Amino acid sequence: MVFGNRGMDSGTGVAFTRDPSTGEKLPYGDYLRNAQGEDVVAGIRNTLPLARLEEIDPASYRGLREVMDKLERHYRDMCDIEFTIEKGKLWILQTRVGKRTAFAEWVMAYDMLEEGLIDEDAALLRVDANRLEELFKRVIAESAAKSSEPIARGLNASPGAATGRVVFSADEAQDWAERGERVILVRRETTPEDYHGMIRSQGILTSAGGTNSHAAVVARGEGIPAVCGADAVHIDIASRSFSANGTRVSEGDVITIDGFNGTVYLGDLPVEESRLERARAGDEGARREKIWKAFDRLMTYADRARRLRVRANADTPDQARNARERGAEGIGLCRTEHMFLGEERVAAVRKMIFASTAEEEEEAYGQLLPLQRGDFVGIFKAMDGLPVTVRLLDPPLHEFLPDRVQAAVDVALAEARGETKGLEEKKALLAKVNELAEVNPMLGLRGVRLGIVKPGLYAMQVRAIIEAACEVRKAGGDPKVEIMIPLVATREELRQMREELEPVARDVLRREGVELSHLEWGTMVEVPRAALTAREIAEVADFFSFGTNDLTQMGFGFSRDDIGKFLGMYEERRLVPANPFVTIDRPGIGRLMRMATEEGRAGNVHLHVGICGEHGGDPDSVKFCDEIGLDYVSCSPFRVETARLAAGQAAAGSGEKRDV
Amino acid sequence: MVFGNRGMDSGTGVAFTRDPSTGEKLPYGDYLRNAQGEDVVAGIRNTLPLARLEEIDPASYRGLREVMDKLERHYRDMCDIEFTIEKGKLWILQTRVGKRTAFAEWVMAYDMLEEGLIDEDAALLRVDANRLEELFKRVIAESAAKSSEPIARGLNASPGAATGRVVFSADEAQDWAERGERVILVRRETTPEDYHGMIRSQGILTSAGGTNSHAAVVARGEGIPAVCGADAVHIDIASRSFSANGTRVSEGDVITIDGFNGTVYLGDLPVEESRLERARAGDEGARREKIWKAFDRLMTYADRARRLRVRANADTPDQARNARERGAEGIGLCRTEHMFLGEERVAAVRKMIFASTAEEEEEAYGQLLPLQRGDFVGIFKAMDGLPVTVRLLDPPLHEFLPDRVQAAVDVALAEARGETKGLEEKKALLAKVNELAEVNPMLGLRGVRLGIVKPGLYAMQVRAIIEAACEVRKAGGDPKVEIMIPLVATREELRQMREELEPVARDVLRREGVELSHLEWGTMVEVPRAALTAREIAEVADFFSFGTNDLTQMGFGFSRDDIGKFLGMYEERRLVPANPFVTIDRPGIGRLMRMATEEGRAGNVHLHVGICGEHGGDPDSVKFCDEIGLDYVSCSPFRVETARLAAGQAAAGSGEKRDV
Repeated sequence: MVFGNRGMDSGTGVAFTRDPSTGEKLPYGDYLRNAQGEDVVAGIRNTLPLARLEEIDPASYRGLREVMDKLERHYRDMCDIEFTIEKGKLWILQTRVGKRTAFAEWVMAYDMLEEGLIDEDAALLRVDANRLEELFKRVIAESAAKSSEPIARGLNASPGAATGRVVFSADEAQDWAERGERVILVRRETTPEDYHGMIRSQGILTSAGGTNSHAAVVARGEGIPAVCGADAVHIDIASRSFSANGTRVSEGDVITIDGFNGTVYLGDLPVEESRLERARAGDEGARREKIWKAFDRLMTYADRARRLRVRANADTPDQARNARERGAEGIGLCRTEHMFLGEERVAAVRKMIFASTAEEEEEAYGQLLPLQRGDFVGIFKAMDGLPVTVRLLDPPLHEFLPDRVQAAVDVALAEARGETKGLEEKKALLAKVNELAEVNPMLGLRGVRLGIVKPGLYAMQVRAIIEAACEVRKAGGDPKVEIMIPLVATREELRQMREELEPVARDVLRREGVELSHLEWGTMVEVPRAALTAREIAEVADFFSFGTNDLTQMGFGFSRDDIGKFLGMYEERRLVPANPFVTIDRPGIGRLMRMATEEGRAGNVHLHVGICGEHGGDPDSVKFCDEIGLDYVSCSPFRVETARLAAGQAAAGSGEKRDV
Repeated sequence: MVFGNRGMDSGTGVAFTRDPSTGEKLPYGDYLRNAQGEDVVAGIRNTLPLARLEEIDPASYRGLREVMDKLERHYRDMCDIEFTIEKGKLWILQTRVGKRTAFAEWVMAYDMLEEGLIDEDAALLRVDANRLEELFKRVIAESAAKSSEPIARGLNASPGAATGRVVFSADEAQDWAERGERVILVRRETTPEDYHGMIRSQGILTSAGGTNSHAAVVARGEGIPAVCGADAVHIDIASRSFSANGTRVSEGDVITIDGFNGTVYLGDLPVEESRLERARAGDEGARREKIWKAFDRLMTYADRARRLRVRANADTPDQARNARERGAEGIGLCRTEHMFLGEERVAAVRKMIFASTAEEEEEAYGQLLPLQRGDFVGIFKAMDGLPVTVRLLDPPLHEFLPDRVQAAVDVALAEARGETKGLEEKKALLAKVNELAEVNPMLGLRGVRLGIVKPGLYAMQVRAIIEAACEVRKAGGDPKVEIMIPLVATREELRQMREELEPVARDVLRREGVELSHLEWGTMVEVPRAALTAREIAEVADFFSFGTNDLTQMGFGFSRDDIGKFLGMYEERRLVPANPFVTIDRPGIGRLMRMATEEGRAGNVHLHVGICGEHGGDPDSVKFCDEIGLDYVSCSPFRVETARLAAGQAAAGSGEKRDV
């Protein structure tokens, strides 16, 4: 036991070998004269910056700096050191590797690499792929944050800064957003019923709930800044306002939240793009900053090291371009659902659904074909030279019709009111909605089943894809096309679909006189049985892509739309290993993936295998995909860098790198 | 080439070594003088009974009989022989093992066993377990069938005879049946929407569709006699009648159908219990018939040979007694859903669902407890000394509330009419229905998830079960209790549920001062992930029971309620190996079962494993269960003998018998 409270020549402090918030290579810490360790922690007395120790007790300071250097060289990392000076003699109490911000960990890793303290593998493994996104989030301008006083503090539930008008319900959030307002949704807590309003808000503020509350989980998943559990916020729904530490804020008032540190401000604080985002966009000033140099160097190394390729899930040319800028090496999932939406298309889709003759149905396809072809041209251009996996239509047809309850109410009310105008139409609509209604739509008539029951539908889509590819090819481009049949459970489904659709593609190519450099046919592996019979399915597939969202839904028997009511409790009580929709459940779903990959390749040595579920952007899942030897992961565009980094780390960590 | 048309000393015929319709050991066949084979087949000329050949050409007849004996000894089975006599010389053209009725195959197998022609294994394998049920179906009295002329003929789609009044829609079938009428549903064809009316009909007659049409499949599944594809039947919905070969039959007229041979009669033909059914019920006369002797002897042998135990799925004391009479060795699945239905219970269930406080919820459980206890007492008594597996509540709670569309229409109409009386109640009901509504209820809040979210519910059920067992035990019985937690996907679910529920059981036993000879805790394996992680789940389970219905639904991504729209097409185009809800899909679902059985036992050597999905009554699936080494199969009571037989055959066929 040593004592720092033996007079003014004694004291105690905490020292970091580098600044834990900026990463700068400067000693950082606090010193308190004539005090014991608990006084520093208690925060009652104001501490001095560590640098002041140099004046107070130069010998001890020199000694401390020597120890700091020694420890950093020993641990090859930033150290957090507790020390005490007793009557001029320095005692080191304990040390550990220090915690740091997402920003600092990149700067430190880069500096230590430059200093030769660590090698490239170590530097790469030093940064947290889960926190990479934070570096791209908008921040409150430093000057504004320093000069403003928060009205409340909560948990930093989802990073990023946001400004907007206060609303108190999800419906209002939606309404206000639709008329162009930027809103912050303020609630005691959120439930799955609030989802539609949450995703239209700039930010979310809750007065209850922790960092795993519904609000926090959804906000992080959607990349929306959030502050949760700000318990000073008292919402009074009756007066449409809240109070916080004496400040009253009414509906429509502007607030600013900072999801990095959980602060809430009244008014419109200036919010800036992150330095990294500016650098990526080409800002020369931002590119001179160390954070960019660190990012650039380590990502370059990750790209060289990784064995996994990284693609993106992108449905539009804009998304494709965005993904490519972030380093995507192709599209792993281009959903075609949106190509059936939009005013001009709805009429044709309805015609297809209501068609009573083959001619009517063909007419509808005739209207949809040129529109879809145009969509594909844009996507192939944006991804020129890189593979694009297009998934043929997957959702059930009733998703393109109105809600069943609403349709029934409409008919009942019209009848009760004795209305005749439009009644027959309403009744016909209700009849069709009832006919197509399903008890469990996830497990019903969708995906390849729809393709089999409505053969003209997939044929139209294939024609649109190949015609688009021909157009791009003729214009000098190099579209690389992969056509993916969803929801396959048996080998025969895929074999028969290919038998129907390949001639459609060949006809177009022959007619256009075009050869494509790459045209493959494959399937999503998202039904457990497909994984269990992968060997025989692979015999008729060029590629597999794991649809881990559905594979998890069916493997666990968890409907994502419905388990919101208990998944939180399940995570809390550890009834599930982790949220299986975020991180691949290795013993269950992961086991299916491993089996399907190994056995699929045994059935077809040329098979290439990827993943296009949301797990493709989760670092732990990317590591698993590397372990089981997938060829690529595909994730949402804003996760591409995370996936590249995680893939690099997986290779660096395993000691098996691609190209270093 | 020989010629049977060289005069009256020539001829041609077909001979069976035993009667293919009764099984009697008498030569049977047709002979046609001065004719070639095609004349017999064409059916233009009337043939003579084979016995007449003895008078016409005694030498050839003697020769034929000698050949028949020789062939039967060689093939050890009944032979079907084509022969020709050319100018008094007998030529044998070809022979094969002859086809026979379900009835005849039993009689023949028994006779041949008695004659020493075949051994017991061969005799057992000679009968078709798939057709055993036919022997228990009601038949048209022989005299009546002989003296009546059918008005139409169709395919024998589902065996059994039925009489009832003609109705033309499923809704009418339901309405008429509910007021006590016996009806035959007559349709061009049926669809899944007709199911509610089909199951309330005595029989089904369709004018279109084959033996794999929707009507045929449902009828066989439900044990309802059916004649399908009777194309002479022309339905005229406008006049609510059908005509058939000149006979007009109106709604409400009585007809009789024979699903054994596809005949349709006008009027109320006398229908009798089958001889086997009468014999089983103790009728001495029926017990003297050979069919009973054959059944008795072969089933006794099957029971000695089989390794698999056979249990039944039974939810009530009546079903349990019925199953026990048919040889069930326990209950493999006692569903408790029906214990929440019925007028007196609905109020308590609603109270449980609407409870806003723990006290209200407890009150509801208090009302349900004695009712459920009474149910269990009856079941334990009926199965005294044999194991009873009780499954805790499985379906989602919204199944106990009205339909969502109806509730919404009720509120909308009441509001439109300006009604105030009862409006708040209707709105509260709608709000609750909406709150509990699920997009995919199969994959939602049900099974163990409900048990975890509403802990009082399963606790109440366990208390009712154990109190009932104590009551039966005190009365001198020996209840053997197995408590089954449904829908488990993770080890922790089962472990935590046991941790909650075992003390409840112990408390009751301590309070009552009773010890049970058998009390086990286990789970249904019906979620793919449970099968994939069976080893770790088995560590906390005494038993597994494969819920192959749900396992097939989730494994294939097939909602049984929804795939009616395409499953027929899938079977026809062989997109599925067979209907996976009838016969276990070996490469997919079967593989999961094999893994789970092997790995479960590796995790717990004492684990016992059964199956309680409907596949437990399907002979091919029973064979598979034997192959992978299950301990028992459990099936619907009317399939118990089928399962016993199939299990015996599996053992006889594999050469590994239990006890012979």
